[in-house]
Amino acid sequence: MQTFHLILEFGKMLRNLDAWLEKATVHAKAKSFEVDVLVKARLAPDQYSLDRQVQSACDAAKFGAAYLSGKEAPKHPDTEKTVAELRKRIATCVGWLETLKEADFAGAEERRVAPPWLQGKWLRGEDYLLQAGMPNFLFHVTTAYSILRHNGVDLGKMDYIGALPLRD
Amino acid sequence: MQTFHLILEFGKMLRNLDAWLEKATVHAKAKSFEVDVLVKARLAPDQYSLDRQVQSACDAAKFGAAYLSGKEAPKHPDTEKTVAELRKRIATCVGWLETLKEADFAGAEERRVAPPWLQGKWLRGEDYLLQAGMPNFLFHVTTAYSILRHNGVDLGKMDYIGALPLRD
Repeated sequence: MQTFHLILEFGKMLRNLDAWLEKATVHAKAKSFEVDVLVKARLAPDQYSLDRQVQSACDAAKFGAAYLSGKEAPKHPDTEKTVAELRKRIATCVGWLETLKEADFAGAEERRVAPPWLQGKWLRGEDYLLQAGMPNFLFHVTTAYSILRHNGVDLGKMDYIGALPLRD
Repeated sequence: MQTFHLILEFGKMLRNLDAWLEKATVHAKAKSFEVDVLVKARLAPDQYSLDRQVQSACDAAKFGAAYLSGKEAPKHPDTEKTVAELRKRIATCVGWLETLKEADFAGAEERRVAPPWLQGKWLRGEDYLLQAGMPNFLFHVTTAYSILRHNGVDLGKMDYIGALPLRD
C-alpha cells in the first residue's frame, strides 16, 4: 500500500464529514431548530463534544500527514463556535492536505515519528500511521458521525464510506 | 506500508474491543446491573445495537482479510445473545486472523475484490482496504466503543488505541 493513498483517504473522509454537517444543517432547518446546538452535543459527559471531535479529526489528519512527510503542519487554533465555522476548519485542513504530493511521503514508513504525547519516545512511521494516526483519525470522524446520528440526522453507511472507485 | 500490517491492526483492535467488553462486565458488576442489557444498547433507534456492531467488526476484519489473501472466510452465524458470547465471537475471529501469514497477502493490492454488496462491480485490493474495508471495520469498532462510553463504561483514548511499539 502507498502511504500517500492513506493520506488521500484522510482528505476524503474529511470531505465526507463536511457532507454530514451539511446534512445536519438541512435537518435542523427542516425541524426548525438552531443547528449550532449540535456543536456542544456529545455522547457521554466526559467525551469530546462535536466541535472537539471535528477539530481533533482535522488535527489527526494534519499532524499525521506532517509527521510522515516531514512538512510543518500549519497552525489552526480551536476557535470554532458554529457548524459553519467547523466546516471552514475542515476546508482549511483539506486545502493544506491537497498541497502534499506522493513524493513527499518517500521513506515515510521508516521515519521517526515523535509527537509530544509520546514524551520522548518514538514510533516507526508505518507503526504510527497504522496503529495510532489512522485509528485515532477515524475514531474522531466516527464519533462525530455518531453524535449526529444520535441527534436524528439521517445518515447511513454510504454517507460514511463516500464514493468508491468501482470498476466494471 | 505492508497490507499484512493493516490486517494485524484488525486483530489488535479486536483484542482492544474484547478488553472494553471486559471493562463493561466489571463496570456492570460494580453498579449491580446485568451486563447483557448492553447487548441491545444503541445510539440511535435505526443504528445497529452493540451485538451487531461487534459482529460487524468481526466480519469486516474477517472478510477484509479473506478478500485480500484469497482465503475462504470461515462462517460465523450471528447467534450471540450475551456479552460473554460476543467475546467468544471475537476470540474465534482473532484466532482465524492469526492463522494468516504475511506471504498470504502477496499481490493483495492488485487483487480484484468483488464482495456481494458491490453487485458485480469490483475494487482494486488497495482501494478496497483503504476506502472501504478499513474505515468500515473502524466504524463498527468505534461505534461499539461509543455505545459503551454512552452507558458509563470507563474507557479512554488509550483503551481505544491499545499498546504501541514505542522505541527509545
